[in-house]
Amino acid sequence: MTTSFDLDSRLSQNGVQLFENSRYLLHLANDNRYVWLILIPKIANVIELHELPPDVQTDIALKSNQLAAMLKNNFAADKINTATIGNIVSQLHIHIVARNEKDAAWPAPIWGHGTPVPYSADQLNARKGELHPLLQKLTWT
Amino acid sequence: MTTSFDLDSRLSQNGVQLFENSRYLLHLANDNRYVWLILIPKIANVIELHELPPDVQTDIALKSNQLAAMLKNNFAADKINTATIGNIVSQLHIHIVARNEKDAAWPAPIWGHGTPVPYSADQLNARKGELHPLLQKLTWT
Repeated sequence: MTTSFDLDSRLSQNGVQLFENSRYLLHLANDNRYVWLILIPKIANVIELHELPPDVQTDIALKSNQLAAMLKNNFAADKINTATIGNIVSQLHIHIVARNEKDAAWPAPIWGHGTPVPYSADQLNARKGELHPLLQKLTWT
Repeated sequence: MTTSFDLDSRLSQNGVQLFENSRYLLHLANDNRYVWLILIPKIANVIELHELPPDVQTDIALKSNQLAAMLKNNFAADKINTATIGNIVSQLHIHIVARNEKDAAWPAPIWGHGTPVPYSADQLNARKGELHPLLQKLTWT
């Protein structure tokens, strides 16, 4: 019996969907302090990276890394921070964040640092306008 | 011209070597609050995961994930946290941490949380004694 994938409501509430295909969801975290992506494999009941099938373990690493390269090359990032934490929302999701030496948390990690600053509607449209053509250039198959 | 790999002195000072082969170094962070591994690819001048050759990107993901599974299965971990941050020490290193609902930082991430508690000599020997046979069972080629 296959269990269908359902996105955790906290992931849907705190993020804005940027992209979806048969294997992945990509969200933008609703926090204007950072360009912060969240990559979610559409597989039910997976909490840890090592629980993914081996081919998905390698594929999600390559997808995460191409997103990291895109952020580094287009958003004046001094460093990319990547993490799977999931201590509160256990459904597997990978954070990929463009960090800048002038950002709100630098050099500390962003998780649990200060209070998120939601995008305004205009800011969100602008950010999506920047990201969408860059995401379309990536390899998603 | 090939540049030889030199380990950043801060990584060597804050960790204890557990394992080395031709491609990787594995350290134990010297912080007795957590079972905290640090995986370092022995490639010079690499800061970001996406800068690694593609075959190493997939290999390091599989190595990191097998370490995560080993921690989860042997150290009563409620969750594995994995991250590449590098905002202070830029030489590429992957944190793989066994988290427990009773640990010092739960549910917050461990990075930047409180002050490290170094192992005593006896505690360190005990931890290495637990880890070494488990590490020998893993696939390192």
